Amino acid sequence: MFKKNQILKNYFNNYIQQIADEEDLDQGQIAEGLQQGSMVILANPKHTGVKPTLIGQPGSIKVNANLGTSPFLNDIDLEISKTKAAEEAGAHTVMDLSTGGDLDSIRTKMMESTALPLGTVPIYGVAQKYIADQRDPAEMTSSELFEEIQKQAEQGVDFMTLHCGVTAKGAALARGENRKLGIVSRGGSILARWMERNQKENPLLEDFDRLLRICLEYNVVISLGDGLRPGAGADAGDGAQWQEVIVLGELASMAKEYGVQVMIEGPGHVPLHLIQSQIQSVKRICHSAPLYVLGPLTTDIAPGYDHIVGAIGGALAGYYGADFLCYITPAEHLTLPNENDVWQGVKASLLAAHSAEISIQRPKSVDRNNAISQARSDLDWEKIKEHALDPAIVSKRREKFASREECAMCGEFCAVKLLR
Amino acid sequence: MFKKNQILKNYFNNYIQQIADEEDLDQGQIAEGLQQGSMVILANPKHTGVKPTLIGQPGSIKVNANLGTSPFLNDIDLEISKTKAAEEAGAHTVMDLSTGGDLDSIRTKMMESTALPLGTVPIYGVAQKYIADQRDPAEMTSSELFEEIQKQAEQGVDFMTLHCGVTAKGAALARGENRKLGIVSRGGSILARWMERNQKENPLLEDFDRLLRICLEYNVVISLGDGLRPGAGADAGDGAQWQEVIVLGELASMAKEYGVQVMIEGPGHVPLHLIQSQIQSVKRICHSAPLYVLGPLTTDIAPGYDHIVGAIGGALAGYYGADFLCYITPAEHLTLPNENDVWQGVKASLLAAHSAEISIQRPKSVDRNNAISQARSDLDWEKIKEHALDPAIVSKRREKFASREECAMCGEFCAVKLLR
Repeated sequence: MFKKNQILKNYFNNYIQQIADEEDLDQGQIAEGLQQGSMVILANPKHTGVKPTLIGQPGSIKVNANLGTSPFLNDIDLEISKTKAAEEAGAHTVMDLSTGGDLDSIRTKMMESTALPLGTVPIYGVAQKYIADQRDPAEMTSSELFEEIQKQAEQGVDFMTLHCGVTAKGAALARGENRKLGIVSRGGSILARWMERNQKENPLLEDFDRLLRICLEYNVVISLGDGLRPGAGADAGDGAQWQEVIVLGELASMAKEYGVQVMIEGPGHVPLHLIQSQIQSVKRICHSAPLYVLGPLTTDIAPGYDHIVGAIGGALAGYYGADFLCYITPAEHLTLPNENDVWQGVKASLLAAHSAEISIQRPKSVDRNNAISQARSDLDWEKIKEHALDPAIVSKRREKFASREECAMCGEFCAVKLLR
Repeated sequence: MFKKNQILKNYFNNYIQQIADEEDLDQGQIAEGLQQGSMVILANPKHTGVKPTLIGQPGSIKVNANLGTSPFLNDIDLEISKTKAAEEAGAHTVMDLSTGGDLDSIRTKMMESTALPLGTVPIYGVAQKYIADQRDPAEMTSSELFEEIQKQAEQGVDFMTLHCGVTAKGAALARGENRKLGIVSRGGSILARWMERNQKENPLLEDFDRLLRICLEYNVVISLGDGLRPGAGADAGDGAQWQEVIVLGELASMAKEYGVQVMIEGPGHVPLHLIQSQIQSVKRICHSAPLYVLGPLTTDIAPGYDHIVGAIGGALAGYYGADFLCYITPAEHLTLPNENDVWQGVKASLLAAHSAEISIQRPKSVDRNNAISQARSDLDWEKIKEHALDPAIVSKRREKFASREECAMCGEFCAVKLLR
């Protein structure tokens, strides 16, 4: 990997001490993870001031916040506020999924507003031009798509979701009668429509070498999109899903061979009893490349509360090996998130990550958990805040009774105090 | 069971058709569950208008909402509003855990305001008189405690948390050096203090027969409290916890023999990798009596967000066999919940229950999940609302774009629409 990807080698050389310290790992573990492809470092040298960020266990489990406009809701100031909210809440990366407004400008401003690595889905940029003109996005050309990727790489995008594994066969399986909910990935559906209309295979798959050349030049990490991910619990683990995963595994090997870093995107909507097999199988098929999951959501009935079911699924996914959790906000399936939704989504995913890390005995997480337990035993509210997920909310909810040692839930019935 | 508990037999005879329909079970399954003690029916005949409620898988997983005042926050109108919020949100039972104000009056008004079965922790009623007078609750007499239980049974309380399994030995183990957080149960800590001060064993254990006589007379379901439950993830599964569970198993057998219905209360704070062994072991040791869990909470860092980690733990617990989830609200560990906290707590626990039920293939839950997936595929928002956890929030968040077929997250990028 280092031989072929000089940019990665430079990042490794310049940031390894900092990353090792942050991750509580030794440098050798990280070097080996990068060489084997079980870890990646997100950092495009064109992204001025980016914080190089490691993804891959046993590094800490990371959290991404999806941001960006939609055709119905297009307010750049709001997106910048949301970016800041995501960072303040503790997100490790953001994605700009804008599909409304001046996408180049939004992307640039978002990158200027945060040092977090930024990801995109380049096909949106091409499709938007068609959709805004009420033209069919299936009319886009392969060249337009690669030019968009090239442009965004030059702008400094650190990772890109690219649905290279959506094949004509996979799309047919996903659109067949056996699925409750067909294709729910926007990128996946655009490509499926394109393939059908043009009677050609997926250009991102057909011309994968071209993609690799661009990504190597800018150390863009390819996040191999799961265009056929299950969008309903009942669809989890079907043939369409695995057909795509198998292709992603092949592409991951090719990318690694070429010196391009790669992650795999995972589900999606998955009942909790299937999460173990999903995570372990995707990891196995894709040669331990970092796994980036969206949820998974353990039930479909939760619009308005999807961050909670995302946390249930995310905790289990992290425990079984997922490396990177894409947050789900309370707005999912309904509308674009506002700042508060972003905050809630990041916090829920951080809890999922932390719950997983305690259970796989990551020392920093175990220590933090023990520290807050000890602070509770001491009724030491300053220490509780220091280790809490959200110190401000601890202060706010104790406001009226801040002078008391006990909390207002138990008052003098405080079990800890009764036994002093 | 039916031979000794005529009240239960009457409830069975009068409500079995209604319960079987609601639970999607046949009458024989329920009769067998009640006889074996793997199911209970909550309903004290003194509780006018109570809805008899079955607890015990394969019956549906139920959700309880803890309500009630504290010494710092004592507003009866608020508690009645919270009771109504809990019922409206979908709770199956409520507990009045009041420790401030006129407890008899609060309890009566709460029972008048809902048909849901109501539970209490009777020792609070006795301890409150001491604590309000700045006396030591360890001075209470055994008679006072039993008189309180008798009084509440006559008032119509349907189930009572009674910490019969807290022994001097268990309390010593829990207060020893190996625990991060000693005893966190209020009832458990009062009894531990009482035993230490009086140099006697737990009166609820010593005089268990007296308890059985009262509970049989009113069909009060004993919820054997976990006074030594772990209050920190690091304490989960230690000797103190299991010592108590073993006693609870013995008491459960005695109660069943006597014709008294019994549930077991479970943890508490448990890292996710230990939830399976906790649930399965408690169930095994306690002869499959219904298990009523508090959370479990998979991390300790989440004050302000504990309903989310309670949902993570509750989903896993339900999947592994827990029958009854006590909600956790965002106020947990900080203050008493307000109406919104109650709402959020109930909804989070319902999601946990539903996530578990999909994974153990309960037909009603699977059908509901499939119905909402189908409605998404049809972009049928009325049907989505019909099956959603919270129809009002779906309407509210779509308000601005209610006339559009797509949601405002994707707009014309709607994957479903792109492939029509």
